Amino acid sequence: MTVLDAQMISDMREAPAAVRRQSDGLAEVLPVLADRLRRMPPQVVVTCARGSSAHAATFGKHLIERYLGVVVAPAAPSITTIYHQPLRLADQLFLAISQSGESSDIIEQAAAARACGAVTACITNDPASGLARACEFVLPMAAGPELSIPATKTFIASVAALARLVAVWSEDKALARALTALPDRLAAAGDLDWSCVLERIAGAESLVTIGRGPTLAIAREAALKLKETSDLHAECFSSAEFLHGPV
Amino acid sequence: MTVLDAQMISDMREAPAAVRRQSDGLAEVLPVLADRLRRMPPQVVVTCARGSSAHAATFGKHLIERYLGVVVAPAAPSITTIYHQPLRLADQLFLAISQSGESSDIIEQAAAARACGAVTACITNDPASGLARACEFVLPMAAGPELSIPATKTFIASVAALARLVAVWSEDKALARALTALPDRLAAAGDLDWSCVLERIAGAESLVTIGRGPTLAIAREAALKLKETSDLHAECFSSAEFLHGPV
Repeated sequence: MTVLDAQMISDMREAPAAVRRQSDGLAEVLPVLADRLRRMPPQVVVTCARGSSAHAATFGKHLIERYLGVVVAPAAPSITTIYHQPLRLADQLFLAISQSGESSDIIEQAAAARACGAVTACITNDPASGLARACEFVLPMAAGPELSIPATKTFIASVAALARLVAVWSEDKALARALTALPDRLAAAGDLDWSCVLERIAGAESLVTIGRGPTLAIAREAALKLKETSDLHAECFSSAEFLHGPV
Repeated sequence: MTVLDAQMISDMREAPAAVRRQSDGLAEVLPVLADRLRRMPPQVVVTCARGSSAHAATFGKHLIERYLGVVVAPAAPSITTIYHQPLRLADQLFLAISQSGESSDIIEQAAAARACGAVTACITNDPASGLARACEFVLPMAAGPELSIPATKTFIASVAALARLVAVWSEDKALARALTALPDRLAAAGDLDWSCVLERIAGAESLVTIGRGPTLAIAREAALKLKETSDLHAECFSSAEFLHGPV
């Protein structure tokens, strides 16, 4: 086992506790943000994130569109950082996700969105970060220090924070109950024996991951993890898109 | 040369004529649509497409955000076709792109968007298709019959139609001039000798294509074409995302 392996395992083992802890940190801010969103319902939510956080944002798109019927658009960063085109974002929700909260291009986009009159919020692991200072609403991941470079518990914490936001915003009781049970479910999943999967993919030189709806984001994250940790060219497709295209 | 190769070459050679022809077919509908969009500016444009058409939609997202500052969101089809969740789309622009105009899930989403009060428009190669009947505004590609299965001239025609829509909507004179010159530029590009690229990639087993801003959509389409025609696992990244993630 490499040092990286050990760090990833250690980080993943901490995810259930992080998700449990997160509940307290969000208890104050989420109702205020949700009240604002209900009083002035946005026509669109713009998400802004990179890498694993962008996959969490894809999960957020699914949740927000499914539970609230509000369209979610991923930010195209170059529109702000290269073309300096202001977007029509007055009273819309701009939602950034960044573990470190220090990616300069994401901070720049958050500042630009706020200047355009957007309601700005961020999910970050560092409530003292530049991104947190740039946004009106700060949603702390509460994941604790992430030791491994491929995001593990911070990805899980981001997805959980998005689900909490949607549960409070939509006032969906079933979703709120599922979130209460989430830390125990995560711990149980971590205790399962996943080694049977390894035998199947150990010889692969190229791999496709497939998901749809809520699992599309998870399939994307799995493909990225395989690239980052195993030098394996893995690529994600929605099942509908895969049938339409390569096969 | 295979039959498929010959068809693809033949289809591509016809692209400049298709783009020239398209101008007439759009001359009536575009000003009416643009006038509607200027009178009731949408807060968001939702695009709906699969495969090559989805890559054209990515190009459209860049154009609409850059020239008009209006956020563009790609539709998540399962929200409509599986979860039957109506989206808040009153007075927003729903823009579908489909060569055949007969993909049942895209027709279903167009109908759902229209029922939610969206302004519905489609770019299609068949103005008598089910999609055309479902939408208020029909923008004909005018590409003529596409013989090859991997889309060639219909991809180019879709991108050109999107650029024409944005040129008329934004009243950008430079973009309009560029579109007048486009058929000749396409013909000149088709006459170039591209064989030097082949030597470089002939031995590859896995390949990454990279783009950003206007070239991101083209890099995505190139990766799909390599998969469809050459059994080569090619995957597209935005240059910013590639540096953030796998490398």
